[in-house]
Amino acid sequence: MPAFSLADVYRARRRLEGRVTHTPLLQSAALSRIARTPVYLKLETMQPTGSFKLRGASNALARLAERGIRKVVTASTGNHGRAVAHAARVLGMEAAVCMSALVPKNKVDAVDALGARVVIAGKSQDDAQVEALRLVSEEGFAFVPPFDDIDVIAGQATIGLEIMESLPDTAAIVVPLSGGGLFSGVAFAAKRIYEDVAMIGVTMERGAAMHASLAAGRPVLVDEVETLADSLGGGIGLDNQHTFALTQTLADDVVLLNEASIKRGVVFAYREERLVIEGAAAVGIAAILDGRIDVKRGPVVLIVSGLNIDMDLHRRLILEA
Amino acid sequence: MPAFSLADVYRARRRLEGRVTHTPLLQSAALSRIARTPVYLKLETMQPTGSFKLRGASNALARLAERGIRKVVTASTGNHGRAVAHAARVLGMEAAVCMSALVPKNKVDAVDALGARVVIAGKSQDDAQVEALRLVSEEGFAFVPPFDDIDVIAGQATIGLEIMESLPDTAAIVVPLSGGGLFSGVAFAAKRIYEDVAMIGVTMERGAAMHASLAAGRPVLVDEVETLADSLGGGIGLDNQHTFALTQTLADDVVLLNEASIKRGVVFAYREERLVIEGAAAVGIAAILDGRIDVKRGPVVLIVSGLNIDMDLHRRLILEA
Repeated sequence: MPAFSLADVYRARRRLEGRVTHTPLLQSAALSRIARTPVYLKLETMQPTGSFKLRGASNALARLAERGIRKVVTASTGNHGRAVAHAARVLGMEAAVCMSALVPKNKVDAVDALGARVVIAGKSQDDAQVEALRLVSEEGFAFVPPFDDIDVIAGQATIGLEIMESLPDTAAIVVPLSGGGLFSGVAFAAKRIYEDVAMIGVTMERGAAMHASLAAGRPVLVDEVETLADSLGGGIGLDNQHTFALTQTLADDVVLLNEASIKRGVVFAYREERLVIEGAAAVGIAAILDGRIDVKRGPVVLIVSGLNIDMDLHRRLILEA
Repeated sequence: MPAFSLADVYRARRRLEGRVTHTPLLQSAALSRIARTPVYLKLETMQPTGSFKLRGASNALARLAERGIRKVVTASTGNHGRAVAHAARVLGMEAAVCMSALVPKNKVDAVDALGARVVIAGKSQDDAQVEALRLVSEEGFAFVPPFDDIDVIAGQATIGLEIMESLPDTAAIVVPLSGGGLFSGVAFAAKRIYEDVAMIGVTMERGAAMHASLAAGRPVLVDEVETLADSLGGGIGLDNQHTFALTQTLADDVVLLNEASIKRGVVFAYREERLVIEGAAAVGIAAILDGRIDVKRGPVVLIVSGLNIDMDLHRRLILEA
């Protein structure tokens, strides 16, 4: 059973006020025609750091600050790292983001520009994680988990509130599925408000840890594979506390996509929606284009989770299309 | 003297609630570095029709509906036409949009898809305008002016409210300048709230009717010239009632840009901000890049007015860059 209630989500929203964007929810004319039902895009790309991760990180940090903790650390190189860095600056906290020496300079610079301390450690993400835990045990930092944390989940859940308040008749919400923080939070809030809403996770065909874990009935390891939806990579943790059980309980369907589909989603977003988005954020659009979302009625809401795509890659995808 | 007060802007906002997006105001890291002061983007691209025009049109139509008028007409082929069509559908009104036979099919289809009646008349925008006025005199339609109308101006002015409420210290607002509806509205609201805010209009070098009129001290005609900022083309009307006087009173500076600058703005928006925007919407960014905005202090807010650029053109601009 979930360890939190809708009241926690409303508390999270109060903490986030003025710190995150109440993101636009816009109908897509093109996707509505294709799906033959109204399709809306929830544009988390409009967060100050370009992804939904800012909600969970901001809520988790605000909770830590309430308890007098002023130093936080994480080991993410991507959207979560940026979110922690940004949230720490807004809240006047100290943030350290651990990365391996192999992380590209542009990702290091992005976190550095947000005022966080970048700690380079070792040659792998595991090494960076070890360094983060050392900062926790030896230097008094609090670790901010990327997804498997009640405060992070409650932050992401505020997206579910915004969707259901704007569009109470929502029939289905389509969510990029990775560690399950976004999925669990949105599904929890949406189903507490309207239990008939269908919650559909979408992820890539290969290296999808949550999907493999759901199939096995317990958290399992998967090999990481290179994918255009790189934000969806990574494990869910063999000691997963929250997101596995929540996703297992709340998911009505999980759709797997190949790389060609995800690419089509990114290109469609550019050409038809005039949106620059990352691969992970395009999976909902791709699933609609592939006819993989079984919509007998609408409206359907797709969460467009982030825009932090490498722009040389984006330009190449557009040229090839 | 202005014929309206800040109270009219608040009334407009009440009418627009739930009908237009409270658009995001996001800081640009890249532009803030370049300008050496915080630069924010007010993303009117996030309106359901992709431009700020929805605010003015929705307010004007709601006012007409209050007086029992249910049929509206306009002669715009662009953002204003879409806005009138969309607003009419939301308000349950009948809309006709007059266009010449030379208007490209994609523009006709865009208005048609929004549920408006497209009336094809003659071979020029003037012919379309004549037809619109015929619908007014013979068929009982109300004409919705694109900018020189108090209700339209009050609708656009709600952008000024949103900016000043979110960022009360705003030192300057940079606005794409065309007929002056957006400029007048935003400047009026912003200066009523904080009289020291500098209001800067930006437009293209050639064919800028408002700039020529300001220089002449009265509304004058200019030849229309092809420009990447096509939404800024067109005259201000020799019988201009409101926007000329308001712009004359409220503008602190008007900056003129050449086509190469506007193109740089569109490309920068894509590469650095991950935004697909039309030429007219890129003029504030372009003016910052050219060092044309004299910012001694910040924050500076750039209104990014719309995204309805031809996507083949956009792709070409990106390829060439």
